[in-house]
Amino acid sequence: MTTDAPGGTGFSITTGELAGLLGAELSGAPDVALSGIEPLDAAGAGDLSFVRSHDYAAAAAKSDAGALLVTRGVELPAEVAAPVLVVDDADRSLIAILSSVRAHRLGPPASGVHPSAVVDERAELHESVSVGANAVIEHAVRIGAGTSVGAGAVIRAGTTIGERCVIGPNVTIGHEGFGYIVDESTGERTHLPHVGGVRIGDDVDIGAGSCVDRGKLRDTVISDGCKIDNLVQIAHNCELGEHVVVCGQSALAGSVKIGARAVLAGQVGVADNISIGPGVIVMAQAGVTRDLLEPGAYFGAPARPRQVVAREIAALRRITKSRRSENTS
Amino acid sequence: MTTDAPGGTGFSITTGELAGLLGAELSGAPDVALSGIEPLDAAGAGDLSFVRSHDYAAAAAKSDAGALLVTRGVELPAEVAAPVLVVDDADRSLIAILSSVRAHRLGPPASGVHPSAVVDERAELHESVSVGANAVIEHAVRIGAGTSVGAGAVIRAGTTIGERCVIGPNVTIGHEGFGYIVDESTGERTHLPHVGGVRIGDDVDIGAGSCVDRGKLRDTVISDGCKIDNLVQIAHNCELGEHVVVCGQSALAGSVKIGARAVLAGQVGVADNISIGPGVIVMAQAGVTRDLLEPGAYFGAPARPRQVVAREIAALRRITKSRRSENTS
Amino acid sequence: MTTDAPGGTGFSITTGELAGLLGAELSGAPDVALSGIEPLDAAGAGDLSFVRSHDYAAAAAKSDAGALLVTRGVELPAEVAAPVLVVDDADRSLIAILSSVRAHRLGPPASGVHPSAVVDERAELHESVSVGANAVIEHAVRIGAGTSVGAGAVIRAGTTIGERCVIGPNVTIGHEGFGYIVDESTGERTHLPHVGGVRIGDDVDIGAGSCVDRGKLRDTVISDGCKIDNLVQIAHNCELGEHVVVCGQSALAGSVKIGARAVLAGQVGVADNISIGPGVIVMAQAGVTRDLLEPGAYFGAPARPRQVVAREIAALRRITKSRRSENTS
Repeated sequence: MTTDAPGGTGFSITTGELAGLLGAELSGAPDVALSGIEPLDAAGAGDLSFVRSHDYAAAAAKSDAGALLVTRGVELPAEVAAPVLVVDDADRSLIAILSSVRAHRLGPPASGVHPSAVVDERAELHESVSVGANAVIEHAVRIGAGTSVGAGAVIRAGTTIGERCVIGPNVTIGHEGFGYIVDESTGERTHLPHVGGVRIGDDVDIGAGSCVDRGKLRDTVISDGCKIDNLVQIAHNCELGEHVVVCGQSALAGSVKIGARAVLAGQVGVADNISIGPGVIVMAQAGVTRDLLEPGAYFGAPARPRQVVAREIAALRRITKSRRSENTS
Repeated sequence: MTTDAPGGTGFSITTGELAGLLGAELSGAPDVALSGIEPLDAAGAGDLSFVRSHDYAAAAAKSDAGALLVTRGVELPAEVAAPVLVVDDADRSLIAILSSVRAHRLGPPASGVHPSAVVDERAELHESVSVGANAVIEHAVRIGAGTSVGAGAVIRAGTTIGERCVIGPNVTIGHEGFGYIVDESTGERTHLPHVGGVRIGDDVDIGAGSCVDRGKLRDTVISDGCKIDNLVQIAHNCELGEHVVVCGQSALAGSVKIGARAVLAGQVGVADNISIGPGVIVMAQAGVTRDLLEPGAYFGAPARPRQVVAREIAALRRITKSRRSENTS
Repeated sequence: MTTDAPGGTGFSITTGELAGLLGAELSGAPDVALSGIEPLDAAGAGDLSFVRSHDYAAAAAKSDAGALLVTRGVELPAEVAAPVLVVDDADRSLIAILSSVRAHRLGPPASGVHPSAVVDERAELHESVSVGANAVIEHAVRIGAGTSVGAGAVIRAGTTIGERCVIGPNVTIGHEGFGYIVDESTGERTHLPHVGGVRIGDDVDIGAGSCVDRGKLRDTVISDGCKIDNLVQIAHNCELGEHVVVCGQSALAGSVKIGARAVLAGQVGVADNISIGPGVIVMAQAGVTRDLLEPGAYFGAPARPRQVVAREIAALRRITKSRRSENTS
């Protein structure tokens, strides 16, 4: 497999070569040249596309793709004429191909500590940890095997990060929480020293520019498998269960608890001390001001069950329309 | 007092030793060993907890804390059996203890200019200023005594920062404002050079990843005692009075004026040229599109007095419910 | 022209000297000393102010400005007594003056690659590119003539940036997109390697702390003339047409398409795969969940035409008020 110059999008391989590489069953011509990977609706004669499940079978019939990577058991419509590579799991094979393309296009994954990074000699980093250029890691930090810390990221004292995590560029972990004692008569605020740390589990991703504050007395906790997008704010003493997803620009105030596998869409805000139950879905831009413990999807500010908000929106539309027809009648 | 390894949460001291250290009046056993600090509801036999005011007296009776730090004058219920340390102000004593714990756990506060920081030789920094690793300070910058600039922060030319400020990691202060001259026929925009600076008072905190733009002609101003959380955006020519609080991910557009002691909760947006009065409270996610000069709390988008919005929400619920009962009757 | 110390706001020049410098027609005294530039309502006897169009003529009559810079053809009221400098375009002349003031006050624009920046030797930078202190530029990056990259910015592999762009401090471009394959039974997520790049056109500005993710298979695209404010999130595979404006803290989810000259105000959110038409205006804090293809202004969450939302707000107010009068009658 060869890949082109920076700015190109693909690679160059024949259907036969790819089948051999993936251990796939090939139906169709082994000599179709592939030089790109595209979704079904965008793929052309030189592109590989993929059918991960039955849901995409109909779209496959309309695709101009040069070849299709298909999960075993998915039945394709008779119209499909392109060569088909059947694999156990099209997604997994796609990841394998993409990893290989990435290595060719963008070089091998970063490794080691970049000489420009500032790593305190008392920090404990597994030998397989990679640290990007101009990143900063203070003392009293521990980082597990296979984790990478992005360029310009700042990991402050008291932070523990598990294995295989990806910490994005310009992330800040472990800065002082936003907690003050207020003099009510003058409005003057005195900062409460935060002595808790941050504990991040294994397989956690934290996107570019995001911030995770250290705890006040106890630790801020992000459990195994959490995926956190760019520009997210996680305040002191938040506790995220396993496999929680937090999308871009969401913000959790202090001491928020989020159950396993909950998903927060983009620009969600959660007030301090709120609990969100396992598997709960909070829709984009929602403002959570009360505990959301029952499973389901929540929407709006204040956030309530999606159906309730949908009915209110519909009721408001009806009223507005009836008023207009009065006015115009 | 001794503190444990990174990842631990506490310290080790007896009630008698702590009373001596704080100059507290001790009632109860002087030999109770304390190795943690926890809120009343979470404290166990080895933890110190605290009662800052009468509001917490009832909770103190239910606490399992090994000892209680109590503000003088607060009467505790008879059920409280744990040793009590009476001090003038439990909050202040707590800060003193936490500062000491922090020094033990996380080492002494940063001092001096880290060798990896890039500080222009024409910048004027008081000798007590600390500058974190890989921070950047341009020329035409002045920084007062006791201020710390976080790792990776960028302080651009034309910025003045007062004394005892804490500028977080990856903060940007003094970048060009977002102001253009538009060619209405083509949509093409030409940037207007911004020659104003940024003036930041004393005792100002700015959280990680936040941005403060330089002024267009005059300065952007953040007055003494302001506390600004993470990922906040403050545009060109904003003027914040003393002790203003701006919580995480809020954004002020150009030329916003905020009166002393006003509080903006998280994810608030304020349109350009808006004025917010002294002491006004803007609730989370509010969108301020008109001046809010009267004292009080404001909510919603567009932001209006909290009670008004609450009544509207209630009215909408009633209408939605009555419609549903019609449908189901 | 001379400029004062850091913290000052101005310069020092006479009306006659300024007319000579700008090639302006001067009506009035040539010896009025000017030491500041202020908007009409704030200008005093020592300040220059400006009248870009007829819209500002009335305000000029009330201004205390020491002199006025006026676009040719604008008729000023008879009350205006200050010396007037007539130029072809007051805005352009203002930019020329401000550029000169900036050069005096803040020094010449940055040039060259700062020695502390980490630029991969395989990156292709035009010789006129400037790179700020502690910025990081990976391999497989191309940057065109006259572009500046801010201090602490991170430009990852696979990014192409055009000419005359201004990339702000602490920006991240080209980090991995937020795309995973989910195991529905466990909630476990596997990251999909993103092999697309980022293509940024000419004359694009990207504000401090903003993030632009690389594409999944194809590139993320930001076309010529786009202006992006601080702390903006642009996810994988977004495509922005020419001269699009995105204000502070807005977020575009994956594969959003925005037509030429559209304007997104602050804190707007756009769901994935949404298309926004050319010239569309999305008002602050709107949440776009459906395509907005018709020209016009949109507001609210979910975003709808401004007039529709305004009518709904009005209807809700009426209902709330009528209910209140029932209660109090």
